[in-house]
Amino acid sequence: MKKSLYDQLFELSKTIKTLTSIEYLLDWDQETLMPSHAIDFRAQQKALMAGHIHKLKTSSKFSHLLNQLIDLESGKVLDPSLSPAQNAALREWRRDHLQAIKLPASFVKTFTSTCSMAGNTWIEAKKTSNFSHFAPSLTKVFQLSRKKADLLGYQDHPYDALLDLFEPGMTVAKLTPLFDRLKTALTTLVKTIKSQPQIDTTCLKGEFNSELQIQFGKKILKAMGFTPEDSRLDLSVHPFCMPLHPLDTRMTTRTHHDDILSNIFSVIHEGGHGLYNKGLPLEQFGSPLGEQSSLGIDESQSRWWETRIGRTKPFWTHFLPLLQKDFPQLKNIQLDPFYLSINKVSPSFIRVEADEVTYSLHVILRFEIEKALLEGSLKIEDIPTVWNQKMQDYLGITPSTDAEGCLQDVHWGFGLVGYFPTYVLGNLYAAQFFHAFEKAHPDWQNRISQGELGFIREWLRTNIHQYGRQYTPEELVQRISGKSPHESDYVNYLNSKYKEVYGF
Amino acid sequence: MKKSLYDQLFELSKTIKTLTSIEYLLDWDQETLMPSHAIDFRAQQKALMAGHIHKLKTSSKFSHLLNQLIDLESGKVLDPSLSPAQNAALREWRRDHLQAIKLPASFVKTFTSTCSMAGNTWIEAKKTSNFSHFAPSLTKVFQLSRKKADLLGYQDHPYDALLDLFEPGMTVAKLTPLFDRLKTALTTLVKTIKSQPQIDTTCLKGEFNSELQIQFGKKILKAMGFTPEDSRLDLSVHPFCMPLHPLDTRMTTRTHHDDILSNIFSVIHEGGHGLYNKGLPLEQFGSPLGEQSSLGIDESQSRWWETRIGRTKPFWTHFLPLLQKDFPQLKNIQLDPFYLSINKVSPSFIRVEADEVTYSLHVILRFEIEKALLEGSLKIEDIPTVWNQKMQDYLGITPSTDAEGCLQDVHWGFGLVGYFPTYVLGNLYAAQFFHAFEKAHPDWQNRISQGELGFIREWLRTNIHQYGRQYTPEELVQRISGKSPHESDYVNYLNSKYKEVYGF
Repeated sequence: MKKSLYDQLFELSKTIKTLTSIEYLLDWDQETLMPSHAIDFRAQQKALMAGHIHKLKTSSKFSHLLNQLIDLESGKVLDPSLSPAQNAALREWRRDHLQAIKLPASFVKTFTSTCSMAGNTWIEAKKTSNFSHFAPSLTKVFQLSRKKADLLGYQDHPYDALLDLFEPGMTVAKLTPLFDRLKTALTTLVKTIKSQPQIDTTCLKGEFNSELQIQFGKKILKAMGFTPEDSRLDLSVHPFCMPLHPLDTRMTTRTHHDDILSNIFSVIHEGGHGLYNKGLPLEQFGSPLGEQSSLGIDESQSRWWETRIGRTKPFWTHFLPLLQKDFPQLKNIQLDPFYLSINKVSPSFIRVEADEVTYSLHVILRFEIEKALLEGSLKIEDIPTVWNQKMQDYLGITPSTDAEGCLQDVHWGFGLVGYFPTYVLGNLYAAQFFHAFEKAHPDWQNRISQGELGFIREWLRTNIHQYGRQYTPEELVQRISGKSPHESDYVNYLNSKYKEVYGF
Repeated sequence: MKKSLYDQLFELSKTIKTLTSIEYLLDWDQETLMPSHAIDFRAQQKALMAGHIHKLKTSSKFSHLLNQLIDLESGKVLDPSLSPAQNAALREWRRDHLQAIKLPASFVKTFTSTCSMAGNTWIEAKKTSNFSHFAPSLTKVFQLSRKKADLLGYQDHPYDALLDLFEPGMTVAKLTPLFDRLKTALTTLVKTIKSQPQIDTTCLKGEFNSELQIQFGKKILKAMGFTPEDSRLDLSVHPFCMPLHPLDTRMTTRTHHDDILSNIFSVIHEGGHGLYNKGLPLEQFGSPLGEQSSLGIDESQSRWWETRIGRTKPFWTHFLPLLQKDFPQLKNIQLDPFYLSINKVSPSFIRVEADEVTYSLHVILRFEIEKALLEGSLKIEDIPTVWNQKMQDYLGITPSTDAEGCLQDVHWGFGLVGYFPTYVLGNLYAAQFFHAFEKAHPDWQNRISQGELGFIREWLRTNIHQYGRQYTPEELVQRISGKSPHESDYVNYLNSKYKEVYGF
């Protein structure tokens, strides 16, 4: 029997996804185990794979198959016998394909090589905290990013085109008022907290064996639902999760000899990403129905586990005794001071080290600068001044060097413009999801304190993971929370949690 | 400036090689670290890569470029301006291409899927030591191998076509008399040794920590010339070396808690393969001049290091004190009994565990059976009987089960017919090379006993590694030793070494 058009398209798409997964393995290997002298050759391997994948994605075969199933122009599905889920898959395939063909191969090549050079310049500039060394490269990156936006097309704001790559459907028009309200709420909360007695974290001080830290991380992952048969945990400079396949989730962490928390929260965070990957429907691997809905939704999963589960008292009711068993140097800590210590709020310079309350302010600052650069209302050379002013305004501190200011993040050098907002959106989504979860499991705290985590994973799988990209991020949030993406649940959560933590 | 035809061909060939290296990474990852549930998906990834690579190898673009540089029919090089090395590269490119296009894609697919199934059947059959369960699959493998030989073509014997895939230029006509003489010499030596007092190896007994064993392996690799920047050592069920790139050599080993030797000699053996890979000319990566000459030459390198260096007294003059430092349970062993213990000869059933003297007999037995099966003078169902008879004739022992007899090796199930002889050829080549090496470095024993190994690596690099496939295996052996491949040097070496070891 001849395969249906839909199945032919699915098969071609699965080929692309399978090759993409090989690209992921090349990345994972590079960041974890690869001998360092292989770096140039690895770049060649990756470029070859990327070229081959781009060719398939933009091939006339793909385009032709797709266009028989959905009108590429109008988006009208042409086969009335397909299910709603299949209609959604076609919508997403069309979306990806139109984006891919809008960027000519020559542009992609220029963009990639420019960003590769700019990335290396950024590494040097960061080392010497020399923004002017980075500025010419960064100018090129933003010029090309603007060109990318023009090629992709947009209605209101060029930033929308880039944002949409990472968070489909999100726009400046939706984000700006939302982020403004969030900023007001958070700066107020930061000021309130600042006026309270500060939390003493000396109880966490100590020396912690790296191998034991990793073993403890694996225990947490096991409790979250991973097995060594479907996942790995390795070391890398920056923790990440590489979703090779629902049956092959690769997570990484890092350990610091004098900090027990960094590894733990990295593991829980990456474990959240990992469970999303593991929970995607196996039989849909290769179709959009087998992919994460968006970066924002993906981040909602990592932040959910890291903050909404991992930084709670019930979680540590179960895990603190286990931690103390592995690290006897912590044996005298009580649950309450431990809980306070892992939730200390303190304005600081580095985004990735920021606490829950200040974190979003770091991101909003970047969003505002990116947007202004792209629309031309801010010049590259003025970034340091604006950055430092905003740090002062939002967090009450000013970086003493650009290395701990506008040079700290990897994203811009490597061309990831429009990415940052997804970090905050993940927190907002998680807060909206959590309301629904609490209604479904009013006894969640009790169960977690018994060491039970499976029911959380199942709730997420049933409500989010199993759908892949069937729903857009906004539809998914709406479906679960009954509301559009909004900051109020998140703000309420933070206010109420930190009122208790800081006792005001 | 337009690229020369030669450079265009080189570039295309480099693309193929770079993709092949990605295939190797998929294999390496599968054998070392991959979560086990990912196995089916990994097979899909590998099949995709293999298909893409085969397409490029047999593409009209490749064929057309090549045919402008060398007449595909006659083998005459058409560009007189090319160097002798480039002529040799064209000879090898032609060889590979003609082999690739002789096998239709449909045949390759059938062969691959049949072998994949036969391989799985072999695993089951070996577990239960049930040859009749394996026989129908093995029949298919040999039928298809015969068809493969017919498709590839041969002059005298169908086995020649398969042998040539692994050891270019080698034939049944050359191999049979050589192996017959070797067999006579070795069976005589085995009998002589059997009549002597046996070596007591109880001094090696003990419990050995796995992590410490791996660390000791890394020390040996460091002395051989590897650094963590260009290589790795990991654990796998069967030790192997995966040559991803001269700057990325991946070796594996295994450890046994009650056997200190297994890991050590695996590491030295795989290190020998690894140094060959590391010594290939970087700038030739992607051309035949940047590849190992043959499986036999590759095996000569591993066996060289394992037996000609690793099992000598000078080597352990330096390394035994280091071993004793890491494993104090061995602190009372003296050099002489240690040396005797690591060179004990004892007929046994399993090839991969065989000593230097009996090893080749295991291989010759397989060669004789393969040859007979392929020419039709032996039936599949008679393998166990013939196998056991030959074991009795050559080694004086008879396996009690097929699991320790004809079912022990992975090769046939996975379609590797014609491969075994390269294991013996490696030993013969190494013996011929060693004569030349001894002339160049008469003080080699003295230097090794000081812990110096770099001069050995350099000699091998200068005489063998740097040429890639510029010379055929036979040319290379001839060039270095002044003789065609021959068993006499190897037999002389074994006779003289074991005369001393067993004192007869």
